[in-house]
Amino acid sequence: MKKWYGNSFRLGMIGGGQLGRMFIQEAANLDVHVHVLDNDENSPCKQIASSFTKGSITDFDTVYQFGKDKELITVEIENVSIEALEQLESEGKKVFPQPRILKMIRDKGLQKAFYVNNGIPTSPFYLINSKNEISTDPQVYPFVQKMRTGGYDGKGVQILKKVEDLSKAFDAPSVIEQLIPFEKELSVIVARNERGESVAYPSVECQFNEEANLVELLFTPAQISEDIDRKAQKLALELIESLDLVGILAVEFFLTKEGDLLVNEIAPRPHNSGHHTIECNSTSQFAQHLRSILNLPLGDTSIRTAGGMINLLGEQEYSGEVIYDGLEDVLAMEGVFPHIYGKVETKAFRKMGHVTITAASVELVLDKAERVKALIKVIGERRNN
Amino acid sequence: MKKWYGNSFRLGMIGGGQLGRMFIQEAANLDVHVHVLDNDENSPCKQIASSFTKGSITDFDTVYQFGKDKELITVEIENVSIEALEQLESEGKKVFPQPRILKMIRDKGLQKAFYVNNGIPTSPFYLINSKNEISTDPQVYPFVQKMRTGGYDGKGVQILKKVEDLSKAFDAPSVIEQLIPFEKELSVIVARNERGESVAYPSVECQFNEEANLVELLFTPAQISEDIDRKAQKLALELIESLDLVGILAVEFFLTKEGDLLVNEIAPRPHNSGHHTIECNSTSQFAQHLRSILNLPLGDTSIRTAGGMINLLGEQEYSGEVIYDGLEDVLAMEGVFPHIYGKVETKAFRKMGHVTITAASVELVLDKAERVKALIKVIGERRNN
Repeated sequence: MKKWYGNSFRLGMIGGGQLGRMFIQEAANLDVHVHVLDNDENSPCKQIASSFTKGSITDFDTVYQFGKDKELITVEIENVSIEALEQLESEGKKVFPQPRILKMIRDKGLQKAFYVNNGIPTSPFYLINSKNEISTDPQVYPFVQKMRTGGYDGKGVQILKKVEDLSKAFDAPSVIEQLIPFEKELSVIVARNERGESVAYPSVECQFNEEANLVELLFTPAQISEDIDRKAQKLALELIESLDLVGILAVEFFLTKEGDLLVNEIAPRPHNSGHHTIECNSTSQFAQHLRSILNLPLGDTSIRTAGGMINLLGEQEYSGEVIYDGLEDVLAMEGVFPHIYGKVETKAFRKMGHVTITAASVELVLDKAERVKALIKVIGERRNN
Repeated sequence: MKKWYGNSFRLGMIGGGQLGRMFIQEAANLDVHVHVLDNDENSPCKQIASSFTKGSITDFDTVYQFGKDKELITVEIENVSIEALEQLESEGKKVFPQPRILKMIRDKGLQKAFYVNNGIPTSPFYLINSKNEISTDPQVYPFVQKMRTGGYDGKGVQILKKVEDLSKAFDAPSVIEQLIPFEKELSVIVARNERGESVAYPSVECQFNEEANLVELLFTPAQISEDIDRKAQKLALELIESLDLVGILAVEFFLTKEGDLLVNEIAPRPHNSGHHTIECNSTSQFAQHLRSILNLPLGDTSIRTAGGMINLLGEQEYSGEVIYDGLEDVLAMEGVFPHIYGKVETKAFRKMGHVTITAASVELVLDKAERVKALIKVIGERRNN
């Protein structure tokens, strides 16, 4: 095999956010040089990338030119010029995850269709092109509307509770999904390399912040039966194989009150629900992503310690240059690992970092997580009116 | 306290080797921007530093100019222009470890005198200025000759076994030390911040490669009594306090057959004998160094798992562009963590990387370490004659 470390191998990363940054930290362990394209000169990857190119990740020419002198191309965000990646792939470049998968996944309508076509359980749904196709029959409320494309970090998704909510419905092609009164939300990360080997991480359990529509806290191991954990891992592995994906896939599940697992969403990249793997598992999701796209042996996914993860979101009232209030108090605690993403400006609910918490049991993790949440706040130089 | 993360705080690192590189990987977790000075454009830090300045780290003007616009300056190697660091310190810059300590430690004669003056046990010795001061009395052989300055990575240290060896003695100011028939060689890492808090890591046990005069394998926890471990930690803490050092200090001990601990050498920076802390301890030595020099709360030093560390040294017969033969086989093993330093060229016994090994017990660690050693070799494009 060609040398994949050192100066002669350039890995191109489209997107310069925190996922790319944590990936670069891991890639340094194997001396894989990561070159980054992003439009924001203050993006998290900038400080530690082998090189940083400023440019639009959704522009065909920019992405194509960036990719041309790289040996391997990957992404850390879905919203990129997939057409440019397809062109690079057609010219013989390795591009993982494969562009056809990015294309399918970024359209939540196609995602849903894929589940149905491959026998993967998911919640009942129908597709609409515009707002006026939504039923006004009070019987069908509440339901979830998800824009087919363009949603990100909780945006483009909302619950419509009653007919009166129709006025605020997105007027865009959407998935209309039955609202599942789920018991728990779970996530499983799987990885697969080019030679078809695949591995799954144990399930994690997620708690949402309703207001921000973002994961607020997750923990591992999930408080579910072994049987459910095994089923979730099996479904996630079936999914990555059906997709024939090379790379990492995060699979979010609803666990219903009846004990059924329904796939909610998938993401073909390292994922927020896998950040704890840096401290809690033998192989982090970032190291695993690297192994999978380089066609290396995949790493052990087992849990080293019970743990949890809290997102550090920008407080709603602040903007301007970020200040992590209470960071030093948190550093004084044992088994607490802050990750600061290096974003210059904070804004309401922006993901500015996360904190991993380890302890001897999930109960102790949750307790410590509450203390961490009370101590640390992401504020900014300016207080909004 | 002033903000120590983000764009407004520049940490200057003198030296661009692997210690600096692993430090930068950790510093990224807290968004501390590390700017590096090194003469070698291919130095390990180059790929991931916030900025890289090419220049001689032993030249007064170069180091002084580099340090002038930094908020804090640290080193990852002792052989730097200490005079420039003293000048920066006198102008009010924070420089940790303090230049006066670097000055003392880089002279093994002064180091020895410091131990004696502070009641720290060390092996008997005397100082010489040149070769002809060495005794020709066969009774005093064997002994160890250590050049007072300029030794590094096993160079400048040798055992003279008999009078006939005098011809190869270093003709330089040296420490002549009694050869201690030690039972084990131990290392303890301690850290201390500006407000005077200090912590010690549990002892690790080292096995040397006689030929290269370098640590070949170390493991944790050391196979010693609790009492000896406690004594070693206590001595190391006494040492860092006597020095009034801010930063990290690696203390190497001989454990004699009689159960006495003698300080062999110290290093005021992250150290080869602490690399395993990345995977094996709650806080890595690199994260701890960062915490100590930023005057942050120090991190928990406890052992998460038994582990060991093997240095990946360049095979003697090779030079040229490095190839890590067997790296993929090693990646297929569980609990095995390679760290590749990103040096472009290999040479005989050059430190090109290390591998950390974790397992349920030291016995299993040592067993796995043998398998890793048999699998991986650092070779190069050229085979020497």
